[in-house]
Amino acid sequence: MSRADRFLKACRLESVDAVPVWLMRQAGRYMQEYRDIRGRHSFLELCKRPSLAVEVMLQPLDAFELDAAILFSDILVLVEAMGIEVRYEERQGPILPDPPRTPEALRSLRAPDPEEDLGFVLEAIRLGREALAGRVPLIGFAGAPFTLATYILEGGSPRDFLSTKKLMYQLPDAFGSLMMTLTEAVASFLRAQAEAGAQALQIFDTWAVALAPADYERYVLAHMQRLVEEVRSAADVPIIYFSLGASTLAGLLKLVGADVISFDWKIDLGEARALLGPRIAVQGNLDPLALFQPREVLERTVRLIVEKAGRWPGYIFNLGHGIHPSTPVDRVAFLVETVHSCLPCARREGGAG
Amino acid sequence: MSRADRFLKACRLESVDAVPVWLMRQAGRYMQEYRDIRGRHSFLELCKRPSLAVEVMLQPLDAFELDAAILFSDILVLVEAMGIEVRYEERQGPILPDPPRTPEALRSLRAPDPEEDLGFVLEAIRLGREALAGRVPLIGFAGAPFTLATYILEGGSPRDFLSTKKLMYQLPDAFGSLMMTLTEAVASFLRAQAEAGAQALQIFDTWAVALAPADYERYVLAHMQRLVEEVRSAADVPIIYFSLGASTLAGLLKLVGADVISFDWKIDLGEARALLGPRIAVQGNLDPLALFQPREVLERTVRLIVEKAGRWPGYIFNLGHGIHPSTPVDRVAFLVETVHSCLPCARREGGAG
Repeated sequence: MSRADRFLKACRLESVDAVPVWLMRQAGRYMQEYRDIRGRHSFLELCKRPSLAVEVMLQPLDAFELDAAILFSDILVLVEAMGIEVRYEERQGPILPDPPRTPEALRSLRAPDPEEDLGFVLEAIRLGREALAGRVPLIGFAGAPFTLATYILEGGSPRDFLSTKKLMYQLPDAFGSLMMTLTEAVASFLRAQAEAGAQALQIFDTWAVALAPADYERYVLAHMQRLVEEVRSAADVPIIYFSLGASTLAGLLKLVGADVISFDWKIDLGEARALLGPRIAVQGNLDPLALFQPREVLERTVRLIVEKAGRWPGYIFNLGHGIHPSTPVDRVAFLVETVHSCLPCARREGGAG
Repeated sequence: MSRADRFLKACRLESVDAVPVWLMRQAGRYMQEYRDIRGRHSFLELCKRPSLAVEVMLQPLDAFELDAAILFSDILVLVEAMGIEVRYEERQGPILPDPPRTPEALRSLRAPDPEEDLGFVLEAIRLGREALAGRVPLIGFAGAPFTLATYILEGGSPRDFLSTKKLMYQLPDAFGSLMMTLTEAVASFLRAQAEAGAQALQIFDTWAVALAPADYERYVLAHMQRLVEEVRSAADVPIIYFSLGASTLAGLLKLVGADVISFDWKIDLGEARALLGPRIAVQGNLDPLALFQPREVLERTVRLIVEKAGRWPGYIFNLGHGIHPSTPVDRVAFLVETVHSCLPCARREGGAG
């Protein structure tokens, strides 16, 4: 077995020879190679020119023994493809200067045609698969409907979620209709990514953290379930669900139907596994800033996480959120080595390895 | 029984005639009376002139049937009393333009003398008790050591906690010494507040949310335990511990030793109670933005929370965080009425009421 297999086998709860590891935002500013290319091209150019997206995607794979590649893109390209302007400002996150705000404007939104409106993403996946040549699997991704809804309704990164929750509470039909449109858009986008060659799909629900469990259950869960069903009916690839607030919603997240739940660092992964049971794989959950720990402390931290998470098959090491731009590169190499040196769980549930 | 007793009895796990309720930031911009006085005085003036602090503290008690008053102040007055400049800028949170950053500068910090350096807070409590004349109890408060440490180390509201975690991971002795100084400062400040007449004390640990459970256990828990012990040894008043991230740390929070744990809205309060057991009271946990729900939805939301939390004695209704400045005032009145109309748990643990 090699880097080519570990990640997908872990997603499918199969035995692996070593704990697979990849890192959210593994292609990013912490690498000199990335900063060099960003000196010549804007973030959006990297997303929209498939050859550049592939070049950037490969950088961390050449530098570290990572077990998966992830499409270089942004969750808001889908929103832009729906006709909503998105600006990426340095150091302050995306801004949507004129998003639809009235129920009528929201109702008029349509799911884009992936091949026509997001062809550059599908092309990056096709080129990426070619360039990877089976070295490691390629993960596609999209934002979750609720998270995309908050960007639209707040006009950018949410501060207090007031506009989102006002619509959700006061005009639940308009909110539900927006969620349905976004669910359809995300589903067809993810299906198209799988068709283009993505071998796993991660759904980022960054802002579900805003919701009380009862509200997640009432306003979000059914859409997520439909999304997962629709993707699965057309694409036989593992689906990973990540939420920055997953820790507080763990009991509900297992109902979404994803193959893998990816956790932030604010939960004991042993407890998370106990909550999810042995039929759902787990991904996570190192605090990205733990990469600033001295090596011997980092090693202990990593081993503790693997110990807690790895008692059952179906474990993928990752950060609890994107890597910090000022992370020391040598620490990333050390992290990957340390994870690979941990003994994975080899036993299948209820049987011998 | 009346508003004079409910809150303190609930803190002490005793039976009550109605579920007590108060709201974090109940004196605030959502009230016209508050905006009027803020038109004439800065936020800091309100904090530092005891007569104004008392006037503002009383505003929500005159308007709503709340069961407790809370000192009008800010957690950073303690930091300022340590000789660190704090600026309050409109709409962007506090800024510490020149906080100590080197280990030496941090080590030279000293706990202030409450009577000498924070006399205005103690005077506001004395005057407040007089003005309340037993109508409802008065809650004093302070920031938790970790939360104050993040403000100092990040120079204001934390974005990514990089400076805090770098110090914590890379110079754990310097971080520990800062935590010890802050623990001593908070302990003596809270003891002085109790001596001045505060009948309960709430400790705000807003930024503990940044920490993985293992890091909270390693770097914060012992300080919190010492803080609670030191306050308790000198003051016979209930201690409430609030963390905006409490939900993910619930299993650890019960080890702190507080009488009451106050939760944000990102946890099912039934699960939280099960985790804490029947000997620790619980406060919370309505999403502040749920006050934008239509009345009939809000009523259901409130009743569901009370039902889940109120199966044991020792429950205080509150928001999961401070009230939003644009909250409709009529909804606050409705909320308080609704909570009081809920049947409280009258049975003591293991016996009939």
